[in-house]
Amino acid sequence: MRHFLPLDDLVAALEKLPGIGKRSAERMSLALVQDRNGLTRRLAEALLAADEQIGTCSVCGSITVTKEDPCAICTDGRRAIGLLCVVESPGDIIKIEKSHGFQGRYHVLGGHLSPALGKGVADLRVNELLGRLQPEAIQEVILALGTDVESEATASYVAEVLHSRGVAVSRLAFGLPSGSAVEYADSTTLQRAIQGRQKL
Amino acid sequence: MRHFLPLDDLVAALEKLPGIGKRSAERMSLALVQDRNGLTRRLAEALLAADEQIGTCSVCGSITVTKEDPCAICTDGRRAIGLLCVVESPGDIIKIEKSHGFQGRYHVLGGHLSPALGKGVADLRVNELLGRLQPEAIQEVILALGTDVESEATASYVAEVLHSRGVAVSRLAFGLPSGSAVEYADSTTLQRAIQGRQKL
Repeated sequence: MRHFLPLDDLVAALEKLPGIGKRSAERMSLALVQDRNGLTRRLAEALLAADEQIGTCSVCGSITVTKEDPCAICTDGRRAIGLLCVVESPGDIIKIEKSHGFQGRYHVLGGHLSPALGKGVADLRVNELLGRLQPEAIQEVILALGTDVESEATASYVAEVLHSRGVAVSRLAFGLPSGSAVEYADSTTLQRAIQGRQKL
Repeated sequence: MRHFLPLDDLVAALEKLPGIGKRSAERMSLALVQDRNGLTRRLAEALLAADEQIGTCSVCGSITVTKEDPCAICTDGRRAIGLLCVVESPGDIIKIEKSHGFQGRYHVLGGHLSPALGKGVADLRVNELLGRLQPEAIQEVILALGTDVESEATASYVAEVLHSRGVAVSRLAFGLPSGSAVEYADSTTLQRAIQGRQKL
């Protein structure tokens, strides 16, 4: 298929994206090369801009504009002092920021403990978290991790380490998702919603 | 969310791709900016190469390396003379080429007749097809269009026009897909497979 070489390179790169198989990559490539509205160039430019500008914040471990390290959230003076929210990945921070439900700073663990994938304590940014406690006078840490077994094990471990340093630790509430009905909740969610019931 | 501007541009561009919603675009963007293997830059370069190199062949209407017009297939001297395969889009050519089942040249219609979308005869490359009959001494045209109602109407129309010019017209065989079982075939496919039965 030498006739279509530039297309093959594009398919190969798109296929590497999460959730994109060979057929989706081919369909996307064909749409891109037939597009007459400059989408190919716009996407290329967005990628180059991201590649040049986005890096990792040395404090919280989230993504940042490279020339801003620490990142804009870490250096934001309006954020609550002494309050950290621990998340698994930078995407979680974007979600929480969009909810406008949290006014402190963040710390990215970089995943959760996973014996199956050989991911242990040393692979998470726990030491970096402990290193922030004193200089930032951290008094409370909210663990915003997932609700699967591995994330819960990770939360237990991090909570234990933080408790031993005298830091207050909380976790996100379990319960019914907003806009949902009891009818659609699974048993575990219902059990936890009942355990966490709130007085009216 | 001014903190994540380069990411927003990337999400906006990815979202424009076929089959990609906002959440997939966000997930892909986060994976790209966290990737440490140069995928972001590789994808950007593949896009720029495609944007610079790929154009449209003025003869067959398929995609081509811009500096090659007519395209590599149209100018390939080893292709059968006088035999054209009419397809709806360039992606179909890639599929047929990969099957190694056809040795002639191609003609891209650019879709099919669609009253619902206001797509009529003037929107298809039918005149371009007729214009090739004499200079290329076309004797046979194979219609490789879809099997839905609109594609079949398109095939009927194109066949009629070609017949009136004295060109032999055929279409792809209908029948069971390779590797499939009678059990899984729908009634229409079975009817057509029976009608098109072949002597053994």
